[in-house]
Amino acid sequence: MKVFVIGANGHIGRLISEQLASAGVSVVAGIRKPEQAAFFEDRQIKTAHIDLLGRPEEMGVTLDGFDAVIFTAGSGGKTGDDMTLLIDLDGAVKSMQAAQIAGIKRFVLVSALFAENRNRWSEAIKPYYAAKFYADEWLRYRTNLDYTIIEPGALTFDAGVGKIETAGIEGGSIAREDVASAVVASLSEPATIKKTISMVTGETPIAEALKKS
Amino acid sequence: MKVFVIGANGHIGRLISEQLASAGVSVVAGIRKPEQAAFFEDRQIKTAHIDLLGRPEEMGVTLDGFDAVIFTAGSGGKTGDDMTLLIDLDGAVKSMQAAQIAGIKRFVLVSALFAENRNRWSEAIKPYYAAKFYADEWLRYRTNLDYTIIEPGALTFDAGVGKIETAGIEGGSIAREDVASAVVASLSEPATIKKTISMVTGETPIAEALKKS
Repeated sequence: MKVFVIGANGHIGRLISEQLASAGVSVVAGIRKPEQAAFFEDRQIKTAHIDLLGRPEEMGVTLDGFDAVIFTAGSGGKTGDDMTLLIDLDGAVKSMQAAQIAGIKRFVLVSALFAENRNRWSEAIKPYYAAKFYADEWLRYRTNLDYTIIEPGALTFDAGVGKIETAGIEGGSIAREDVASAVVASLSEPATIKKTISMVTGETPIAEALKKS
Repeated sequence: MKVFVIGANGHIGRLISEQLASAGVSVVAGIRKPEQAAFFEDRQIKTAHIDLLGRPEEMGVTLDGFDAVIFTAGSGGKTGDDMTLLIDLDGAVKSMQAAQIAGIKRFVLVSALFAENRNRWSEAIKPYYAAKFYADEWLRYRTNLDYTIIEPGALTFDAGVGKIETAGIEGGSIAREDVASAVVASLSEPATIKKTISMVTGETPIAEALKKS
């Protein structure tokens, strides 16, 4: 399986890329700036330039020949909400369109807990939730992709524990490392296809939790 | 016919409300702040408070009993792109959901020329176009509303000429008064249902142009 990671230089993107490489999966880290390559080169992970402000057709050429796309890009808190709209929403949708252009079926998107429920959107970062909501909805209803939407709770830099909870979540946190593990594990778990999976740290081994998702 | 105008206090919203009232149509101007009411009271037009940052369920109560909704709200250039996301996109979608909750079928949305074509989005206000695009797409594909999407070219404050062009548009401008006339005329022209109609000033009388749309 050849996997392309969009947003590879983010915290979760780096963990996903490392885990895939460690597992012997052929992975290419999609990056925006040349200086982001060093991290991956040090770990013998290939990189490719991908521009989420570009056209889906161009992005589709970059994705040609891959079997799965993982989207974990985000404009982050340092840029304005213009980039929330153009990266977190439109960049995500263009990535889906690029995957379709390249004939790729499998698409895993990292979203946020409660993105689908306006009443739970955090007041402080409401535009971010709105962007995630509309990107998720496009993936669910406007594509024919074999998608998995991962909705983690509050992200921590703790070491992963390998165990999560996916049902009846009212809130909570999760290590980015466990989110990365769940994304990687979802690629080999057909039960995750066409599913939105909420997760916080918990008691169930990740593979087992995903199988029941 | 009872018509509710969302974004009534905008330039186009005021023109639409005035034209509807002049034509003897029962119209309510949806406004955000009490001080916006005076303009309409002076013209014997009823107003109602509607909050696009509120819940669709609450908005649906406000829309109860109407036959058509016109959405011409926009956060404008004075607020940030957080409001572009929360008003122009999410506020528009919540208005559609509110109309559906209220059992209203007819929904006319004022969008922007080329909103459906990323390659034509103006670089200076790209986030605005992205917001319009996703709102338009929701209306087309995620609702069962009898919609009309009006996509005017560059808006001017010129007096309306009552004539437009709707086909083969490469660019151009249009008086806000003519946009308002087209919105009002679309309510009584079934040919405009489930259509996206681009328009700039032209040679064809508005009613005739809409009939052929």
